[in-house]
Amino acid sequence: MLEQLKDEFVKHVRGLQDEITAKMHEIDAKLELQEDLWEREDYESNPGGGGITRAFTGDIFENAGVNTSVVHGAISPEFAKKIGSSDARMWASGISLIIHPKNPKVPTCHANFRMIQAGDKFWFGGGADLTPFYPIEEDFEYFHGVWKEACDPYGIYQEFKDKCDDYFVNKHRNNEMRGVGGIFFDHYNTGDTEADFKMVKDLSNQFIRSYFPIVEKRLNEKFDSEDEDFQLHRRGRYVEFNLLHDRGTMFGLQSNGRTDSILISLPARVKYSYRYAPKKGSAHEKMMEYYFPKAWV
Amino acid sequence: MLEQLKDEFVKHVRGLQDEITAKMHEIDAKLELQEDLWEREDYESNPGGGGITRAFTGDIFENAGVNTSVVHGAISPEFAKKIGSSDARMWASGISLIIHPKNPKVPTCHANFRMIQAGDKFWFGGGADLTPFYPIEEDFEYFHGVWKEACDPYGIYQEFKDKCDDYFVNKHRNNEMRGVGGIFFDHYNTGDTEADFKMVKDLSNQFIRSYFPIVEKRLNEKFDSEDEDFQLHRRGRYVEFNLLHDRGTMFGLQSNGRTDSILISLPARVKYSYRYAPKKGSAHEKMMEYYFPKAWV
Repeated sequence: MLEQLKDEFVKHVRGLQDEITAKMHEIDAKLELQEDLWEREDYESNPGGGGITRAFTGDIFENAGVNTSVVHGAISPEFAKKIGSSDARMWASGISLIIHPKNPKVPTCHANFRMIQAGDKFWFGGGADLTPFYPIEEDFEYFHGVWKEACDPYGIYQEFKDKCDDYFVNKHRNNEMRGVGGIFFDHYNTGDTEADFKMVKDLSNQFIRSYFPIVEKRLNEKFDSEDEDFQLHRRGRYVEFNLLHDRGTMFGLQSNGRTDSILISLPARVKYSYRYAPKKGSAHEKMMEYYFPKAWV
Repeated sequence: MLEQLKDEFVKHVRGLQDEITAKMHEIDAKLELQEDLWEREDYESNPGGGGITRAFTGDIFENAGVNTSVVHGAISPEFAKKIGSSDARMWASGISLIIHPKNPKVPTCHANFRMIQAGDKFWFGGGADLTPFYPIEEDFEYFHGVWKEACDPYGIYQEFKDKCDDYFVNKHRNNEMRGVGGIFFDHYNTGDTEADFKMVKDLSNQFIRSYFPIVEKRLNEKFDSEDEDFQLHRRGRYVEFNLLHDRGTMFGLQSNGRTDSILISLPARVKYSYRYAPKKGSAHEKMMEYYFPKAWV
């Protein structure tokens, strides 16, 4: 039964990868796609699965990655211990995507849905979160609204929303979030695997509807150099989060993952300035207030 | 005796901070300096020292930080355990600097010299390393030559050079170094504290001679957009090293350090591209070969 669900999960994430790819091409006529099929060796140098990495650069989507993978095999004893597993074998599959639009009025978005088996443990994880650079509140309400609607049948919106607010936080930057949140869950296992599987499938199927309408609504909005400057500095905070705090990045790099596929998450252009702060009274200063937990719906 | 050395060390790093600041102003007429004096609370909310952060932006030096600090007081029990200290009190002072020139023909440079007392343990650490973006071999030979000459009286060049080659490595990027190395040492304590102190003073006094003649020689060299593109991508690797691997950054952020002073190390502008590689046959491709250990003198 579990084996059948695993197969189905892989099929599901690959289908979703294709749908998202198609949607992106539809929106961005100049979008270029570099696809890499990669294979992996496990800790004992046996075949250990692989993945399909899709790297995009375009006019509207400055850079993006929409990746799927299925990895399995032996893990190092240290790593097994770290994840609390009784044996050193694992299986994991998922879709992971991150989209960095060029226009600062269009938010960056990340989503990830995964199924993991480690030794005798088994769980689902995932979520979707929005990183805007301009205070267009209705977009944040829309994004959270879609996820609330998707989560409501399972009664888990508030829980998953709170987890997201807790997770995507730069502790070293006064607990600023990297964006305005969304939903996040990990080690999800109610005991009813089929029901859990169905939930994750339902949620992941909402990604397209949660994000791309915002892109389509904002992609022609005008922006100036100050908008871009704020965006590039906030992208800097995005890099800080991913490299200092993100468990997915750590897991990937420490489990002998493919570095280029993992760090595809980093934005194409970034700025850092000592004690960066937006102009007093600007929309960007307003935006800073939103990088803290807030009820959006 | 130890208390007197500690005072002398603080005086020494502050003097060096002023000398380096003066040298930078001499080279870059448009250099702007933002100086912040900051105070710190220790783990128990008692006064815990502070520092002098100097952040620079200029025409030749795109961004740079030349910082000194003296911090002391209680540390968290977890942190004490992590550094292997029997009690939860520490004292540390040092100078830490990083300079990111605008012209890709001028290397980035980092140096750090510190004196640390943690519980019953006591040691020196530091070093200097060069991160060039163009294969001008004579500059790398010059830099290493100065450090070899400085280390030779103590018979420790090879050891410190090897440690540097081992330390500044992006393991997740096929073990590429972030630059061409230099010297690095940590937990240095021969038992003769006065002699150790003298060595660290001697070494740190060589920093100006090791780096600024290279800046002065190259600052007017022409460069094109490909040179800059390579530089900005290599700066991306620099950020990856600092946030994923650098123990100094970790130590700073985990010991309740001042985030803005710690992350002043990040370069002003950075680029990331999926599977970035320099053009075949270019000088930049040649440069890539040098990001691995090599005998430069």
